[in-house]
Amino acid sequence: MTLFDPEELHEGPRGPLVRVRLVVAYDGAPFHGFAVNAGVRTVGGTLTDAITTVVGHPVELTCAGRTDKGVHARAQVVTFDAEQDRFDLDGLVRSLNKLCGPAVAVTDAAVVEPSFDARFSARSRRYRYRVLNRPAPDPFRSRYAWHVEEPLSLPAMVLACDPLIGEHDFAAFCRRPKRRDGEPASLVRRVTEAVWHDDGDGDLRFEIEAGSFCHQMVRSVVGTLVDVGRGRKHAGDLLAIMRSGDRNQAGDLAPPQGLTLWAVRYDGWTAG
Amino acid sequence: MTLFDPEELHEGPRGPLVRVRLVVAYDGAPFHGFAVNAGVRTVGGTLTDAITTVVGHPVELTCAGRTDKGVHARAQVVTFDAEQDRFDLDGLVRSLNKLCGPAVAVTDAAVVEPSFDARFSARSRRYRYRVLNRPAPDPFRSRYAWHVEEPLSLPAMVLACDPLIGEHDFAAFCRRPKRRDGEPASLVRRVTEAVWHDDGDGDLRFEIEAGSFCHQMVRSVVGTLVDVGRGRKHAGDLLAIMRSGDRNQAGDLAPPQGLTLWAVRYDGWTAG
Repeated sequence: MTLFDPEELHEGPRGPLVRVRLVVAYDGAPFHGFAVNAGVRTVGGTLTDAITTVVGHPVELTCAGRTDKGVHARAQVVTFDAEQDRFDLDGLVRSLNKLCGPAVAVTDAAVVEPSFDARFSARSRRYRYRVLNRPAPDPFRSRYAWHVEEPLSLPAMVLACDPLIGEHDFAAFCRRPKRRDGEPASLVRRVTEAVWHDDGDGDLRFEIEAGSFCHQMVRSVVGTLVDVGRGRKHAGDLLAIMRSGDRNQAGDLAPPQGLTLWAVRYDGWTAG
Repeated sequence: MTLFDPEELHEGPRGPLVRVRLVVAYDGAPFHGFAVNAGVRTVGGTLTDAITTVVGHPVELTCAGRTDKGVHARAQVVTFDAEQDRFDLDGLVRSLNKLCGPAVAVTDAAVVEPSFDARFSARSRRYRYRVLNRPAPDPFRSRYAWHVEEPLSLPAMVLACDPLIGEHDFAAFCRRPKRRDGEPASLVRRVTEAVWHDDGDGDLRFEIEAGSFCHQMVRSVVGTLVDVGRGRKHAGDLLAIMRSGDRNQAGDLAPPQGLTLWAVRYDGWTAG
């Protein structure tokens, strides 16, 4: 690991830059989400500090999906620019894993074209949500699942996914972002897959893929689908909820610990 | 849940007692081991407080294996005596899971013969130890495994298990207990199984079963076997280490988070 004089860190890079792409896995429990936020421990802040220490100059991170507090990632993608003479990739990975572990792990690293951007080059994101559906809790699975004690109707939950597929306005399932320029952001998203699997022993797994997601969309969709599984809503209600554009029609947010950013697809390459 | 006046709690049981047996699973990470220890959070202390709250009188817990700080259990067994009119089993389980969850979960409860004792009636204990053997860390598995980066020779580790099987003095692998009466405690134990499995993707799993274990025995055995896998010791050294009775000959203790109390066998019944 290369360590630099802290005074030098504020000067910024001086030599030729290369774009670096990392694939990062993390357990979201100890973090206040991905986005850098002064005063709290975030995945992005932890990574930025560690990369700065290793390459010896400040870096700015871009990520494929800014996960919320408590949400996990199996394959988050980040890009940043670094002076090419300041590091080698293998040493970078080893140093970052020593500095950030064990809750954060870099699983892949590459130098990519300067036009490659973790966020804007991504073609689709895939999230997985786990529900533990049985009376007894499980200390090992409850860290990565939402424990729902009452029996859920999986066929109803599968049926309710149908209206989600395709291009729709997901306002009913999203926290509307604040825009500084006054222009309302589009909440139209294209969902290509949304399906529940029964992995046995109470393990229910929801897989959803879309070009991109609005803020809190997956947890809101899961909360609504679990309401269907409980019989509080009908599978046929999903279309009306979506068309209403009204967040009060949707179910409560599913808790964050069940959610994992599972994979990110790019042209010719997939992380995860 | 039944809640009693705190003043009443100190009076002890007054009605006829029944012996209650629980099977308990826990994630050991947030606890300073099982044994009740004033001032620190322990699994036994958490359970004792919760049971006292539910049944309305103090109880004394006996367990099948007093796991150390950071060690997990899939099937710990505990017994205690409670006034039979103070609770029903289903309500007890529900209340304990609400009070102790999510790190501790009661997975089974029964009223048993007064002669049944979680510790002394047990015929054997089975522990599992997980090693994550690959260069890259894994935030999800590292909570329940020892991450060893350098490649281990599994055949050598399997071979080295051979001398462990049978009845031996395990002093070389144990922390010698302090005895108040001056009589040295026997460290002779009968191991009936000790084997490594390769579950793929770097997951190595050690299974060991014995009538009972000395303190720190499994972690010391695993530390020694991993030394063999690294090539620091030979498989043929195990017999000499065991015969030496010298703790300095054995390897360092494997870290606690890889260890799980997996199952406990009794006459006619097995937990786990």
